Formats: sequence, C-alpha cells, structure tokens
Amino acid sequence: MKIYLAGPDVFLPDSIEIGRRKQEICASHHVSGLYPLDNVIDRAAADVSLRIFKGNEAMMDAADAIIANLTPFRGPGADPGTVYELGYMAGRGKLCLGYSNDPSLYVERVRRCGAVVERDGRLIDADGLTVENFGLGDNLMMIHALDLYGSALVTPRETPADIWHDLTAFEACVRAAAARLPAAPASG
Amino acid sequence: MKIYLAGPDVFLPDSIEIGRRKQEICASHHVSGLYPLDNVIDRAAADVSLRIFKGNEAMMDAADAIIANLTPFRGPGADPGTVYELGYMAGRGKLCLGYSNDPSLYVERVRRCGAVVERDGRLIDADGLTVENFGLGDNLMMIHALDLYGSALVTPRETPADIWHDLTAFEACVRAAAARLPAAPASG
Repeated sequence: MKIYLAGPDVFLPDSIEIGRRKQEICASHHVSGLYPLDNVIDRAAADVSLRIFKGNEAMMDAADAIIANLTPFRGPGADPGTVYELGYMAGRGKLCLGYSNDPSLYVERVRRCGAVVERDGRLIDADGLTVENFGLGDNLMMIHALDLYGSALVTPRETPADIWHDLTAFEACVRAAAARLPAAPASG
Repeated sequence: MKIYLAGPDVFLPDSIEIGRRKQEICASHHVSGLYPLDNVIDRAAADVSLRIFKGNEAMMDAADAIIANLTPFRGPGADPGTVYELGYMAGRGKLCLGYSNDPSLYVERVRRCGAVVERDGRLIDADGLTVENFGLGDNLMMIHALDLYGSALVTPRETPADIWHDLTAFEACVRAAAARLPAAPASG
C-alpha cells in the first residue's frame, strides 16, 4: 500500500532528509511512502519542469492515497502545487489525507496579512475580496475533500516550534491511512 | 457542452455580475458556462460550507471542461480553492484551461513579497525555502496540467487596468475550449 507524500517539503533546504524521515514513519506503520524527490530527473534537461510534472503524476497514479502537507505557504493558504495534487487524487478516487502545522483559522491568517473589515455582512480584505469565514482552517474545497474522501484535516493543538520539520501531525495522518487501507508489506 | 467557471471571482463584491458576464461570453461561443454561485445553497444551514463543496463538485462532474482563473490571489500564487478544482478536473480526465491576468513570472512575484537570494545555485525566499525558477507563471503542477490536458496558460501581454474584471484572457480560453469540444447549443 502506497501513499504519495505531497507538500512544500520539497522546497526545504533539507528536503531529501525530510522525505527520508517521512518514509521511515510510513515504514514503521507498514505502508510505503512515495516522495516526489525520489523521481530521477535530469535537472540539466531543457524540459526539466515537465519531467518533474510527469514524474509526480506517475507517482500519484501508482499511489493508493495522498498525505498533503497543507501548512500555509507564502501567504495565508496552502501551497497551490500541493493543493493541485490533492485535487488530482480526489478526482482519481484515491484516499485523501492532509495536515497543517498551523492550527489557526484561515480568517485569522488573512487578518495577519492586512486589514479585514466587515461590510454588508461579509468580511472583506484590503482588495475588497470576500474572506471565507466558515470556521475552517483553509479554503472549503480542500477541507471538505479531506472530510469526505479521507479524514479531517489534522492540526496540532499549538503551532510547533519548527513548523517545517515537526512530523507529529504527519504521523497522525499515516496512522489514519494505515487504519483505512489494506495492509501490505512496506517497500519504501 | 459545459464548462465549469472556476476562480476567486466568487469572492468579488460583484461576483454574481461577473459570473453573468462570463456566461454571456460562453454563450456567444456556443458553449455553456457553469458558475458556482448558480448553485442554490441555504446560507443559513449549519453545514453551509459542505453544501457549497457538494454543489461545486456536482457542477464539475457535470462539466466537460474547466476554465480556471489563476490570477494571483493573496500572495504570489493562484487561489488554492481554484487550484484544487483544476486538479480535480485533471484527475477526472476533463479538458483543462486556465488564465492569469498577471503576466509576470512566479519568481518575480515572490521577489515582490520579500527578499529572494541565491544560495548553492538555488533561489531561496526569506524562510529559506526554494523558489521555483523554471521561467513559468506559477507552480509547475498547474502550468503543465494545462499544457498536457488543455492548452497553455493564457496571460495578457500587460497586466490589465482592472485585474479582476478584464475578461480578455478568459474569452481566449473560451475560444480555445469551443474549438476543442464538440459543438452543442448553449443552455446557460
């Protein structure tokens, strides 16, 4: 049983090491973690980004589930690349799990980025755009995809000291996936 | 032939009017635009966000294609809710089109948000995370999904005066979709 490990973890300076730690946690729960950086890509090729896309997609197609790291990335919401992959896996009918190491509500994080005011019963940001205010951790499409196709977004009670390296919430997702999927010997 | 009209347009103060304009453009190209706000949702219900999710998903399942508005939203990247929908439609094997009214490269927009420096041959942001630098308009997953499953991201030559209301790039997507899909009378 294979789980695609999606997230902006691939952008960390120690991205290979964090992938290895995630795969060890998977193995300890008798599942196999597929990590994007394990794809062998010729980084000198002219079409390197297309090769990365195809490698990631092939890994997703080979996986039974996704665990998406939805920790806010360069703004109040999750990394769009990761969110694309969550949507893709939902569309393919795969098991969808996700976590965020930031337990705050989406609306709280938009407030931190700038003024949010109430107008005509709606919360609006500085550009006049409505701020989703459903008491959720991020955009409703991701949150409810997890609710319906896997299990609810996992968040810690408090933001961990190292938001990019703490894997407690990740491990909770692995545990939930392992309990949902048929057991098989871990291979990765 | 039905096209799901995804985008942060639903957060605009005149979100209903912009949806109506998008649907008119679709009709003029003999295709039917499905706009999320056309779902009838009881906004007083306790589970309103789940109802919105289910309504949007049913619309996507009924559609042959998606046109995603990937104009940067609350940060350097596209709206994660819209990106989820693009991923979902790609996963379902539907025709995928998208546009952004900001023609700049992703790396340029990250620079605008804060310092980007080069270290060990990588561009990194203020948090030490790698900045994708493939000469693309946004994260490679979305960009290449469009390349492979529809047509390349449409952007204007210059940012239009009204980034949220200019529908020139949107209409180019409609034209491309209409040329790719079997003709049928527009119904919406």
